[in-house]
Amino acid sequence: MKKVTVGVDIGGTNTAIGIVDVDGNVLEKGNILTPDHGDAGKYISDLASSIKEMINSVNEDIEVVGIGIGAPNGNYYNGTIEHAPNLSFEGVVPFVDMLKKEFPGIDAIALTNDANAAAIGEMIYGGAKGMKNFAMFTLGTGVGSGLVVNGDLVYGSDGFAGECGHTTLVPNGRLCGCGGLGHLEAYCSAPGMKRTAFELLAKYNATDSMLADKSFNELDSKMIYDAAVAGDKVALEVFELTGMYLGQGLADTVHHLSPEAIFLFGGPTAAGDLIFKPVREHMEKHLLPVFKGKVKILPSELDAGNAAIVGSSALAWKELEG
Amino acid sequence: MKKVTVGVDIGGTNTAIGIVDVDGNVLEKGNILTPDHGDAGKYISDLASSIKEMINSVNEDIEVVGIGIGAPNGNYYNGTIEHAPNLSFEGVVPFVDMLKKEFPGIDAIALTNDANAAAIGEMIYGGAKGMKNFAMFTLGTGVGSGLVVNGDLVYGSDGFAGECGHTTLVPNGRLCGCGGLGHLEAYCSAPGMKRTAFELLAKYNATDSMLADKSFNELDSKMIYDAAVAGDKVALEVFELTGMYLGQGLADTVHHLSPEAIFLFGGPTAAGDLIFKPVREHMEKHLLPVFKGKVKILPSELDAGNAAIVGSSALAWKELEG
Repeated sequence: MKKVTVGVDIGGTNTAIGIVDVDGNVLEKGNILTPDHGDAGKYISDLASSIKEMINSVNEDIEVVGIGIGAPNGNYYNGTIEHAPNLSFEGVVPFVDMLKKEFPGIDAIALTNDANAAAIGEMIYGGAKGMKNFAMFTLGTGVGSGLVVNGDLVYGSDGFAGECGHTTLVPNGRLCGCGGLGHLEAYCSAPGMKRTAFELLAKYNATDSMLADKSFNELDSKMIYDAAVAGDKVALEVFELTGMYLGQGLADTVHHLSPEAIFLFGGPTAAGDLIFKPVREHMEKHLLPVFKGKVKILPSELDAGNAAIVGSSALAWKELEG
Repeated sequence: MKKVTVGVDIGGTNTAIGIVDVDGNVLEKGNILTPDHGDAGKYISDLASSIKEMINSVNEDIEVVGIGIGAPNGNYYNGTIEHAPNLSFEGVVPFVDMLKKEFPGIDAIALTNDANAAAIGEMIYGGAKGMKNFAMFTLGTGVGSGLVVNGDLVYGSDGFAGECGHTTLVPNGRLCGCGGLGHLEAYCSAPGMKRTAFELLAKYNATDSMLADKSFNELDSKMIYDAAVAGDKVALEVFELTGMYLGQGLADTVHHLSPEAIFLFGGPTAAGDLIFKPVREHMEKHLLPVFKGKVKILPSELDAGNAAIVGSSALAWKELEG
């Protein structure tokens, strides 16, 4: 019998579910809607039914040994989802305890946030195999992070550590989605890149830029990438500045934790050297001599399409390691 | 027989040595000069002689079970002092191995930098007893830090983690002693406070400030404290701004590690609420809702006069814990 774990990634609108083997292969996957109203009870019962169906539909002889869940405001210590702003569940939901009632035979059921799950995915299946100290930054609508120290995810005193997207890069700088000012996420997320593009269009009065015909609500980071590849100066400077901001932030992480590597995941990383080169250059500029030239900045090796469920499933494998 | 450890704190000019019991009581202490030239061989042999003399002069029946050393650029993993800018030893000195030859009966000999040693001191003897996740910031000529995650000091991939004094608070800001720009140390160290005072004197043309008759080389943080207590507006604003800067930096640490508490140690902390109040206020302002009101900012409970040797001795006790 092939041992497998289930990965569940709970997003604001969709919940992705996958059956994953120890090498990170996805044997089966699917989606259910995350409810936009109501309590967690019915949702968890629906989720359990979908998981059981999916387990039955795998065409191999499998044994499910764990379930890992990635969820916003997921608290690893208590297995709870706490006051998640994008989910309809109110207050503190004892998610793991409720799911354990549906799967009484499975001990290894654990929950954390999506960026932490991605970091564990990188450690179990990806480029961080064998690394004891590394960080993972996920760049998308927001910026998440997962930190690994001495081979373990850092959960901190309350289960919520690893929110590097909300470190301050620029005092009194851009308004962040969280209400704070000047946070890394406000500069280095995909919307942050768009904001940088609009600042540069304004600064240079760049009527001839390929980005100059797009409204604020139209422009996205893929358009900025395409324009940069075509040589558009504003778009190229967006990548340079995004690298400058992210490099400053990653240097702060290095000064905290001295990781062996920092992995970058998410849409903007598809731009390759356009983003990695300035990130590396600017990070190095900020580092103490003792750290210079040591810390690798690497693209995540997780398959972008499956990373969320694969990362979550890795959390269950990590539990089984002890 | 009372078990004791030896704490050694290597500074640029002085090396402090102490015999410390498991409760942090200093049974005996003394100093030797740190050499300003020459290699480490003779110094280590002198240091060993002094330690042996000191052990013999203790008026109790003691057993020395470990030696802990705090040293600039001390690498815990290798027991080496590496390219320390303030010490005369060139290159990489295998300090622990050399000292072990002088004390063949003692297995627990370990070395790290002084701020890491202070953090372990706080954990073994001080206010962090029983805490698994906390941070320690030492404010003095520079700003050092030691980070504890899951009950262990964070050494990172290379042994040098925990340099939060060199995170960037202000992009392209003040020149730091390390050559970087805008680092926390350039704002929150004792000299950083002096720099803030001079900026404010200039900003307000504050000829009537109690600080206005001191030259840049005369003014120190104690004078700023005395002036603040006497109600001097510039001096009061120095504390407010120092708290603002430090609060921003500590929030970054919270977003990384979500510690239960952050301990502050060093001269400027003697100002009590003058510094702690703005630090707490400004840190809170930067925190994500999930962290607000949770993280304690506390004064170190280590005795300032003995903290360096006591912290170093704690490293040896920590080794013995396994």
